Amino acid sequence: MKDETDIPAMMAELGARAKAAAAELAFADPAAKRRALEAAADAVAAHEAEILAANEKDMAFGRDKGLSPAMLDRLKLDEARIAGIVAGLRAVAAQPDPVGQVMAEWDMPSGLHIRRVRTPLGVIGVIYESRPNVTADAGALCLKAGNAVILRGGSESFHSSGALHACLVDGLRAVGLPEDAIQRVPTRDRAAVSAMLAMTGVIDVIVPRGGKGLVGLVQREARVPVFAHLEGIVHIYVDRAADPEKALRVVLNAKTRRTGICGAAECLLVHRDLADGLGADLVAALVAAGVRVHADEALARLPGTIPATAEDWGREYLDMDIAARVVEDIDAAIAHVRAHGSGHTDAILTEDDAAAARFFERLDSAILMRNASTQFADGGEFGMGAEIGIATGKLHARGPVGAEQLTSFKYLVEGAGSIRG
Amino acid sequence: MKDETDIPAMMAELGARAKAAAAELAFADPAAKRRALEAAADAVAAHEAEILAANEKDMAFGRDKGLSPAMLDRLKLDEARIAGIVAGLRAVAAQPDPVGQVMAEWDMPSGLHIRRVRTPLGVIGVIYESRPNVTADAGALCLKAGNAVILRGGSESFHSSGALHACLVDGLRAVGLPEDAIQRVPTRDRAAVSAMLAMTGVIDVIVPRGGKGLVGLVQREARVPVFAHLEGIVHIYVDRAADPEKALRVVLNAKTRRTGICGAAECLLVHRDLADGLGADLVAALVAAGVRVHADEALARLPGTIPATAEDWGREYLDMDIAARVVEDIDAAIAHVRAHGSGHTDAILTEDDAAAARFFERLDSAILMRNASTQFADGGEFGMGAEIGIATGKLHARGPVGAEQLTSFKYLVEGAGSIRG
Repeated sequence: MKDETDIPAMMAELGARAKAAAAELAFADPAAKRRALEAAADAVAAHEAEILAANEKDMAFGRDKGLSPAMLDRLKLDEARIAGIVAGLRAVAAQPDPVGQVMAEWDMPSGLHIRRVRTPLGVIGVIYESRPNVTADAGALCLKAGNAVILRGGSESFHSSGALHACLVDGLRAVGLPEDAIQRVPTRDRAAVSAMLAMTGVIDVIVPRGGKGLVGLVQREARVPVFAHLEGIVHIYVDRAADPEKALRVVLNAKTRRTGICGAAECLLVHRDLADGLGADLVAALVAAGVRVHADEALARLPGTIPATAEDWGREYLDMDIAARVVEDIDAAIAHVRAHGSGHTDAILTEDDAAAARFFERLDSAILMRNASTQFADGGEFGMGAEIGIATGKLHARGPVGAEQLTSFKYLVEGAGSIRG
Repeated sequence: MKDETDIPAMMAELGARAKAAAAELAFADPAAKRRALEAAADAVAAHEAEILAANEKDMAFGRDKGLSPAMLDRLKLDEARIAGIVAGLRAVAAQPDPVGQVMAEWDMPSGLHIRRVRTPLGVIGVIYESRPNVTADAGALCLKAGNAVILRGGSESFHSSGALHACLVDGLRAVGLPEDAIQRVPTRDRAAVSAMLAMTGVIDVIVPRGGKGLVGLVQREARVPVFAHLEGIVHIYVDRAADPEKALRVVLNAKTRRTGICGAAECLLVHRDLADGLGADLVAALVAAGVRVHADEALARLPGTIPATAEDWGREYLDMDIAARVVEDIDAAIAHVRAHGSGHTDAILTEDDAAAARFFERLDSAILMRNASTQFADGGEFGMGAEIGIATGKLHARGPVGAEQLTSFKYLVEGAGSIRG
C-alpha cells in the first residue's frame, strides 16, 4: 500500500486481506467476538477526546466545503453521540451470535440426519456518506456475523471514521482476532468505490448507506449483490374502519417525528367515506403541525393545503411534506401503493381484521404495518439490536438488515455409512 | 405474438403476462394450487400417447442432428418416465404450501407484534437443456411457491416440452388459476435466452439447468440473479478414524451409482496413515468396479491406476473417473477442498466426532456430509419433494432448491395505534 494512487492494487490488497480474515472469522469463538466489541466500546469511551478532535477537523473541512446545516449535523459528533456509539457497540456485543445456529434439523427415512446451520456471508463492503457512527455500527454487525468488512466512509467524515475505526481495531487486537476483520479504505479517492463495486469473487455483498444518489449509483454499477433500498416512499392508508384517535396519533408521528428517515410517511390515502370527517381532521392536524399537504382535488379545498401535481404521487420528500388523496376503497389504496410505492414500508389504519388481512396479503412491501407508526421501520425497533440498513430486494435480506441477515447457511448431513439406492 | 421473429417484443409480452399472473398467484388459495398440480398430473397421464408422439418427433430430430447416445437418453420419454413425471407432480402437489408460513413471530416492548411470513419471489425464469421432465418439475415447484414461471427448454426437447406444458396449463385452467402462471417460450430461437438474461425488473431469478456450458453462459451474462451451481467437484476425505467397511460402501456408491449427476464423487483424499491399508483397498475396489483412478505419486504404484496430472485436481469428470491423493492430515484435506472444491458437496468419512466437527466448521460447501454418500445431494433426498436445482451461491438459496427456496418474505407488524417516541 506504498503507492496510494494505485487504487485498484490497493483495493485488491484490502480484498485479499479481508478474504483471509473471513476464513478465520468463520469459526471464531463467539466469546472472542463479543469481547472484541466490548473492548472496542471501551476504546471509544477512552478515546473520546481524540475522536472529537478528529471530528472537529472534519467539521472544519465540511464548513469550508459549504455543507448544508443538515449535512453538518449528520457529520457532527458530541459527547452524547459518542455515548450512543459506545452503547450501540455494547448492544451488538450482547446480541446472540448467529453463526452456527441450527435453523432447522430433521431426519430422513434413509437414516440421514440433516441440519441447516448459519454461516457468515464472507466479506461485506459498506459504502456510506457522512454519518461517522456507521463506521462503528457496520463494523460491529459484520463482525458479530463472522464477516470481514471493508468500510468506505464519505470523504467528509474521513478523520472521524478513522478515529472510530482505530477503536474497532483496538478491540480486535485485544482478543487476538485478525485486525483485517474490519478494514477501512485509507483514501478519499472515489476510485475506491468503483473498485469495490467490481470486486466479484472477493466482496460477497455491498451495503450502501446514504442518499438516493449514492444508492442509485451502487445499484446501477455494482457487479456484486447489493442490500439496499433506493427510496422509502411510505404510504399510510386510512381505512373506513380506522379508529380516529389512533389515526391522528399515528399519522402525525409517522410524518413528523423525524422527516429525514426512510420510514417517514410520504403519502396519505384516505377512504372516500372519511373525506369530510377523519380525512379532513387529519389534513388539518398535519397543516397545524407545519406539514405542507399536497392534496388531490377532493382534499385541496381544505384550508392550508397545496394542490398536488402528478409528481407528488410516489415522491420521497424526506421533509415536512406529505401527499394526500382520497381513494374509492381498500383495493384502490392497494393499487395506488403498487403503482407508486417503493416496497419499503406501507401501513393500514383499521379496526377491521378482514381489511388488514387483505392489505397484508395483497401488498408485498418489505414491511407492512397495521395501526402503528411507519417510523418503527428500524432494526432496533424490530429487536435486532442494530441494523446496517433496510433492504427492499426480494432475495436473501429484506427489511431491516441486522447480524442475522448478514449470514448464509450450509447443510450438515450425517449418516451411518449410508448409501443411496 | 404474431411476429415470432421479434424476440425482444415477444419476451417483453411474456414477461408482462408473467408479472400480471404473479400478482394474482401471490395470494392464490393453497388448495387451488394443489388441485391444479393434481389436474396437471391427470392430464399428463391422460395424454401419454400425445406426449410420446411429440417425444418421438424430438428423438427423430435429435438423431438427425447426431446427438450422442447419452443425450438421446436424456431426451427420451417412455411409459416409465411419464409415470415418474406424474408421480413428481403429485408429490409437489402434496407438499406443504410455503406461502404465508410464519417463519418467526415475536413481540416488542413497544407493543408491536411482528411476524415474518413467506411470500413468493415473483417471476422465475428456467433455462434448461434436453430433459423434458424439467418442464413439469420446474413448472410445478414454481407454482407451488406462488411464482409465475417462464420456461425455456432446449431446442431438442421442443415438442416434448410443449406437450407437457399443455398439460400444466390444463391443470391451471381446471381450477381457474391464471394460465400465464406457467408460460413456455414458444420458439427455438436462442435470442430468447439472451432476452431472459436481461429482463431485470421482470424476472426475479433465473435457474439454469444443464451442463457447464449453459450454466457458465447464464452466470456470466445474466443481469438478474441466478440460482445455480457451475460444477459439482465433490470430494470425499477418508479420515484416519474412518470405518473401513463404511468407507468402501460409501466411496463406491458416491462414485459409481450414477456418474453423471452433480453429487457424484470426483476426488478421493486419503489420510497418510491409511495409504497402504484402507486407501489401497479403496483404490483396488474402484479399479475393480471399472473406475479410472487418477492417482497421485503415493497411490500411483497401485495396480490399475493412472498417474494424475495437475489438471486432475478440481476436475469434474461426470464419468467413471476419480482423482485420488494422500493427504498429511485433516487440515491438508480441508486445504485441498478449499483450493480445488466448488462449494457444492464434500464429505468426510470418520468415526471421530472432533474430526467431523472440524471438517464441518472449517469448510463452507453448501452441503457437508459425514459417513454418507455424496449421491444424497438431492432435494428429494433432503425431503423437499423435488428440486429445481442445486445452488452454490451464498445468497438466499443454497444447496437443493425446492419450493421453500423459491420464496421471499415480508414483515407484518401490528400495533394498537403505536407511535415511536
